[in-house]
Amino acid sequence: MIGTAAGSSAMYYAMTAMGHAAPSNYTGPIKLDGDPKGAKVLVLGAGLAGMTAALELRAAGYTVEVLEYREKAGGRCWTLRSGDEYTELGGAKQTVGFSDGNYINPGPWRLPHHHYAVMDYCRRLNVPIEPFIQTNYNAYVHRGDAFDGKPQRMGEILTDYRGHVSELLAKAVDQGKLDQEVTADDKELLLESLRRFGVLDDQNAYVKSLDTSGYRGYDKQPGGGVDAAPVASDLNDPQQVIQSQLWRYFSTHESLDHWAPMFQPVGGMDGIAKGFEREVGDLITYNAKVTSLKQDDSGVTVTWEDATGAGGGTNTSTADYCVCTIPFSVLGQIDHNLSPGLSGVISSMFYNGSTKVGLEFKRRFWEQDEQIYGGITYTDQAISQISYPSTGYQSDGPAVLLGAYTWRGTDTFKFNAMQPAERIKWALRMGEKIHPQYRDEFKAGVAVSWHKVPWVLGCSGVWEDREAQGYEEAIKIDNRVVCAGEHLSYIPAWQEGAILSSLDAISRLHDKVING
Amino acid sequence: MIGTAAGSSAMYYAMTAMGHAAPSNYTGPIKLDGDPKGAKVLVLGAGLAGMTAALELRAAGYTVEVLEYREKAGGRCWTLRSGDEYTELGGAKQTVGFSDGNYINPGPWRLPHHHYAVMDYCRRLNVPIEPFIQTNYNAYVHRGDAFDGKPQRMGEILTDYRGHVSELLAKAVDQGKLDQEVTADDKELLLESLRRFGVLDDQNAYVKSLDTSGYRGYDKQPGGGVDAAPVASDLNDPQQVIQSQLWRYFSTHESLDHWAPMFQPVGGMDGIAKGFEREVGDLITYNAKVTSLKQDDSGVTVTWEDATGAGGGTNTSTADYCVCTIPFSVLGQIDHNLSPGLSGVISSMFYNGSTKVGLEFKRRFWEQDEQIYGGITYTDQAISQISYPSTGYQSDGPAVLLGAYTWRGTDTFKFNAMQPAERIKWALRMGEKIHPQYRDEFKAGVAVSWHKVPWVLGCSGVWEDREAQGYEEAIKIDNRVVCAGEHLSYIPAWQEGAILSSLDAISRLHDKVING
Repeated sequence: MIGTAAGSSAMYYAMTAMGHAAPSNYTGPIKLDGDPKGAKVLVLGAGLAGMTAALELRAAGYTVEVLEYREKAGGRCWTLRSGDEYTELGGAKQTVGFSDGNYINPGPWRLPHHHYAVMDYCRRLNVPIEPFIQTNYNAYVHRGDAFDGKPQRMGEILTDYRGHVSELLAKAVDQGKLDQEVTADDKELLLESLRRFGVLDDQNAYVKSLDTSGYRGYDKQPGGGVDAAPVASDLNDPQQVIQSQLWRYFSTHESLDHWAPMFQPVGGMDGIAKGFEREVGDLITYNAKVTSLKQDDSGVTVTWEDATGAGGGTNTSTADYCVCTIPFSVLGQIDHNLSPGLSGVISSMFYNGSTKVGLEFKRRFWEQDEQIYGGITYTDQAISQISYPSTGYQSDGPAVLLGAYTWRGTDTFKFNAMQPAERIKWALRMGEKIHPQYRDEFKAGVAVSWHKVPWVLGCSGVWEDREAQGYEEAIKIDNRVVCAGEHLSYIPAWQEGAILSSLDAISRLHDKVING
Repeated sequence: MIGTAAGSSAMYYAMTAMGHAAPSNYTGPIKLDGDPKGAKVLVLGAGLAGMTAALELRAAGYTVEVLEYREKAGGRCWTLRSGDEYTELGGAKQTVGFSDGNYINPGPWRLPHHHYAVMDYCRRLNVPIEPFIQTNYNAYVHRGDAFDGKPQRMGEILTDYRGHVSELLAKAVDQGKLDQEVTADDKELLLESLRRFGVLDDQNAYVKSLDTSGYRGYDKQPGGGVDAAPVASDLNDPQQVIQSQLWRYFSTHESLDHWAPMFQPVGGMDGIAKGFEREVGDLITYNAKVTSLKQDDSGVTVTWEDATGAGGGTNTSTADYCVCTIPFSVLGQIDHNLSPGLSGVISSMFYNGSTKVGLEFKRRFWEQDEQIYGGITYTDQAISQISYPSTGYQSDGPAVLLGAYTWRGTDTFKFNAMQPAERIKWALRMGEKIHPQYRDEFKAGVAVSWHKVPWVLGCSGVWEDREAQGYEEAIKIDNRVVCAGEHLSYIPAWQEGAILSSLDAISRLHDKVING
């Protein structure tokens, strides 16, 4: 089995004693002490929540059986590669036409470094990670009604915005307009900090100069030898920057979930699924479509059918306990006798939608023509963003970018209603406003709308108000069944939520088994 | 020979026509048209400037000979690995005691993505690159007199600073104190932008909340299952943030030279040197210490000796022309008959110093205990920064970080004066104030002070005033000799400067050869 955590106790020490990091619900590999005396647990779903449960419960001495609807493990931790087939709800089938080695992650696609549990499982399961470029100052911010619809380099607009607001504040401070808020002692330090923060000159002004160009970019870059002196760039008009509303795109990479650096498994997100599968694959029955989940005081009984339609009739699995990671969107359609409280949450939970479109192009024009290596361009169009691959930099040949990532809102429903080919067409039509090379260079595409993904029917469970909707009811052990997954966490839509939910659920289940 | 640039003409097109990127002095692979009829060029120095000249001149039809002082190519593009020996000026010899696979780059260590020439040579020479993590919000900012000397997470302090200044400006704007600078139309948009930029609440205040914690970090992170709700973190007192002066460390990664993302060659910076060496290694005579450089109307004559001290007397190389990339700090000590104008610059150019200390530790405690994956911690101590490895994330076993990087100023001279072991001791003493694990985990170190590096005697050439110091004189073709290197560029201390200087120098030399 997998190794123990070299640094985990030290991590916990550092986090609590040194005060360097915020305490996490994850403080190193789970310890389930006490002998479960061979009690059997049936795990429903081989996504990350289910496989976490399977791995840790077997290690603790349980007999474990896992039923999985799909032909492979991972659930939403999913990577589409050349030759993969995918049929969505409604029957539209796509065969991925990417070149060998190219892929797209339709589900989770990046790992925050402070998602301690995911990071630690990557380490324990020997899943190599590499940086995911979230922030790219050379990528664009774009709005149809800003700068005549011309995309702007993020670093340029950000520098101008910061310069402008720093100058405004410096003026107010310098003119004594904030003397009630800023002490005389702090005034000079504040002004000095603003000169740095906003790249202001000695008069606290943000002006065209080689200094400001050294932050926003030059009109002509410095070079070598003759005629090599840099030429300063013109600043954007402050009013135009404010009115452009491009500042709406500055905040994502500043949020904790996107703090630099972020990571991704080398070769695709399903590297994590495969890592778990290496450990617990022998416990999993694939293509098992659960049709009923029943429990009584003596145990749990689950019936299931072959999901491929190969027949074979109804199968039955029994166990002492059950960890059910089936998304509530699907579980609500399965015959069960769970408690009224839990059933109420299951049948009422709404699932977010999201559409991702992977586009393969003949060459990396974003790198070769525009010096954009990884990172994200933001736009007010329905595609919302274009994310460039954080791998294979400078390589020749075709490459895949994320050409659309809709998230909530009406745009998602529009994309959802379309057939896959139509989604790709729209992604191209919108993307070419930013990259005119799109039309000439397009090679193949694949589009996943999560409301049409048969095994989830959505992207993630939504809690508008955990108290009113019965979160506490939903996470309770219901006699012999406990539910787990991202939908039963405070980190919905992230793999960390799925794993932490699972660890919490099996801890409580184990406690019940050992201590009654 | 190496391939042509797939995207270079497109790059130039995009840069000039679409206005997306600042024009560079590098617009794709150099074209040296016209037959030089076998003219011979002697290249002095097999650093990046010298090897660029050798590669491109041979491709253009020249006979090329390269003399290199060291036993290998690369010059300052240099990587120290396990078992490497290095003897500095004064005789102190270090044998690198790192574990296999670990390394430190004593010279250049990161590639801005807009260093077009370096990036393009990496592509043409098949040098794979990977992200160099410049910005890590989870790394520290530290000053001895701030927060009782306790290191603070950069993202936390940055969020607080941004919140504080946004709140101050929003107050001034809201109270009409800046009505002369901000139009009524822009006022609401500006306030809305500040609420986003500073994570302010509806009353334009920066307050303790789950919202602000979502940017600066929580007191307790969100989790899964029971007791999983996040707990908001206390904000730092605004005065303390201003007075801490930790904001001094926010600007580096905002400067164009450090715009995200940055890159590094996989396996060490000398991957670039080796890439060039694969192409032009056959032209290089190693261990050749140039002792004189003379020219007359018929050609160039260079004498050189075996640099290993193996004897063999004085050797002579002749050529029609010479590209001299020997740093002026060294060239000034060589017998030459260059023109008075050029000689004046050579003998008066000052070279910056810099000290880098590589420290190997038994384990990646910065990752395991403190969740710092790559990136840079800044401190007001003489070591100036600690940079964590941007490779091998989550691996077990020893790893090397950059434990000191002094740059200009008196600290550099102090480190320079020390013996290597003493530099390492100081790096440990200062570093352990940030990472108490240093003492227990230290394994091996190596320290390079550039003023004591025999083949450069410094880090980079300094121009305080190019006009007054004779930059134009220094870059001129002096009869049959042209000088090139980072010192003859507007991008000193960067490899891009060396390559662009070389490309410019050989273009002019070639023009002279062809057109007289």
